Amino acid sequence: METYYFDNSATSCPKPEEVYKAVEAGIKDYNANPGRAGHRKALESGKKIYEVREKIAKFFNIENSLNIAFTANATESLNFAIKGGIPTGSHVITTNFEHNSVLRPLFYMQDEKEVSLTFVNTYKEIEENIKSSTKAIVVNHISNVNGTVQDIEKIGKICKKYNLLFILDASQSAGYIDIDMERDNIDILCLTGHKSLFGIQGIGAICLKEGVKIIPVLEGGTGSFSKLSRQPKEMPELLEAGTPNTPGILSLGAGIDFINRIGLNKIKEHEDILTKRFIKRLRNIDKIKLYESFTENQGPVISLNIEGIESSDLAQILDEEFGILVRAGYHCAPLAHRTMGTYETGTVRFSFGYFNTEEEIDYALDALKNITLQI
Amino acid sequence: METYYFDNSATSCPKPEEVYKAVEAGIKDYNANPGRAGHRKALESGKKIYEVREKIAKFFNIENSLNIAFTANATESLNFAIKGGIPTGSHVITTNFEHNSVLRPLFYMQDEKEVSLTFVNTYKEIEENIKSSTKAIVVNHISNVNGTVQDIEKIGKICKKYNLLFILDASQSAGYIDIDMERDNIDILCLTGHKSLFGIQGIGAICLKEGVKIIPVLEGGTGSFSKLSRQPKEMPELLEAGTPNTPGILSLGAGIDFINRIGLNKIKEHEDILTKRFIKRLRNIDKIKLYESFTENQGPVISLNIEGIESSDLAQILDEEFGILVRAGYHCAPLAHRTMGTYETGTVRFSFGYFNTEEEIDYALDALKNITLQI
Repeated sequence: METYYFDNSATSCPKPEEVYKAVEAGIKDYNANPGRAGHRKALESGKKIYEVREKIAKFFNIENSLNIAFTANATESLNFAIKGGIPTGSHVITTNFEHNSVLRPLFYMQDEKEVSLTFVNTYKEIEENIKSSTKAIVVNHISNVNGTVQDIEKIGKICKKYNLLFILDASQSAGYIDIDMERDNIDILCLTGHKSLFGIQGIGAICLKEGVKIIPVLEGGTGSFSKLSRQPKEMPELLEAGTPNTPGILSLGAGIDFINRIGLNKIKEHEDILTKRFIKRLRNIDKIKLYESFTENQGPVISLNIEGIESSDLAQILDEEFGILVRAGYHCAPLAHRTMGTYETGTVRFSFGYFNTEEEIDYALDALKNITLQI
Repeated sequence: METYYFDNSATSCPKPEEVYKAVEAGIKDYNANPGRAGHRKALESGKKIYEVREKIAKFFNIENSLNIAFTANATESLNFAIKGGIPTGSHVITTNFEHNSVLRPLFYMQDEKEVSLTFVNTYKEIEENIKSSTKAIVVNHISNVNGTVQDIEKIGKICKKYNLLFILDASQSAGYIDIDMERDNIDILCLTGHKSLFGIQGIGAICLKEGVKIIPVLEGGTGSFSKLSRQPKEMPELLEAGTPNTPGILSLGAGIDFINRIGLNKIKEHEDILTKRFIKRLRNIDKIKLYESFTENQGPVISLNIEGIESSDLAQILDEEFGILVRAGYHCAPLAHRTMGTYETGTVRFSFGYFNTEEEIDYALDALKNITLQI
């Protein structure tokens, strides 16, 4: 059976051809340990990794590419940012649309570091919740449940005004919407490589604004500063302990090349057309409950339920009968479901990517309509 | 110029053909987010990952494969083990041959968690240093500097006798020497995938003996238990936060398949022949100072210096004039150099892998001899 992949919020699929090639180069041509030796192969790997740092810096407008550290995934980046960057005893404002990769580190801070938390639905409620003890804002740029887009330029302005640390989870947004570390006044940008940036799984990054201080959560070999008994304070070594993921890093570089070649705006435009088409028609189908963005902008991910069918059953029917691949359940974002009124039911999530087509959207719409007619 | 790769302690090179294929499958055929959805692609990825867990379990004799968590590298595994497993205020015995991936987390524990440390050269000195406050032994199975092999079966017996937590850094040993979690009484086994296990960079693992308790250092999405505000206590979710590295995991599985096909003993035998050949002839070359194992067993990695040449210069000459790729410096193991008397000079390290040949060894020996004759 032909399959229709609408689970791009989990991982983008397929990857561009150049990403496959970059991975192959990473494990064949550049298979040495970068920064760990002076021989030609290690230097070549190191150079390739430096090039990717430069690409990321340019893509997100980061002045000094050495302020970018590679991580295993956005979760690791967010742990580094939250556990290493938020002061003990401070007040933090975050949203109800955070993923567990933000919530669990924040609850750790609440339990262990006397941090107090305020949850808001959108960026519009941030300023009114600022207290004298507020030190940081942690925001999921685009909800992985209903596509709520937070206005990070506005949040950045608030953070600047009140001198707050701005930590951005860009897992769902990087590679879809323009992010500018300087313009948006972001202090810590947390990225995953394998979603809209088109890299493979196992690679992420954390980008610090110049001067932002973080205490490392992980420590280990850095290939340089070997005689120091603790982690070096210099970036990127500060946050890069152990052998880097050369193939993953190169895949991320190739993913950014792909985006630059197509054009970020064109990618966004395409995904927006798909999302609008999907939502517009679904609004006209009886028995379908849609869970849309809480702000004026909708990202390319949306949740729904069909009256009378469990979300997990619906996902199974879509898969087995129509070859439609979506995710059902809570999507690792429990508070979003409290907020949307789906805490007991979960939702079925459709998430679109650049490689989806309007025909695929229509196929999914027909399938959903078909299912509603049968119950 | 043809190159001769003797930097296998940094990363094994090349990888077996089946590893390349597994990576390709991981990013093409199994490119979904395992454990994050119920659709067929996610289930297929999940099944593949489960198979690798089973392979690792069988390879290291781990009863329950769910006690294996995938990490980004051995450094992450060791941070999890040391920061999450060693009690505050306890005394720990470790060796002078530890890598910074062990030393820096241990010094963190010393600085922040009132842990006291005793350093020994070999396993033979462990028992005499045990105090009533001793709670853990952390040991580098094979030194990445001079190939000192610690007898883990004997250490395991001591740990059992005194009820101590046994944390093993098997970065240099897994895939070269037989490790048996049960026989060797290992509580926490820390692995890297990209060295002698032949996987790609970016993948590691941590294996817990049934009943060993660890507090997670990282927290985040687990795809299950989504409503829990903190990290689930169940393995492997406890230590697996965020999207797993599917291609990396599959590469590790293929690496283990390769080892099983060749035979671990045969691999060890081959590398031992190379190492012995290298050492035996070097002993007869004037001006060469060899740094051999501190125990009765020598791993396939050895350090040396040539009188009158800086280690970094020697490595550069070997690379530029002979195409010989080795690592010079401290190898992220500063205490080893204090112990060997090379703290000011560093060493040039040769590390051999299964794909090295006797001819390559002879070529390296001739090159070294040649260099000694020119100074």
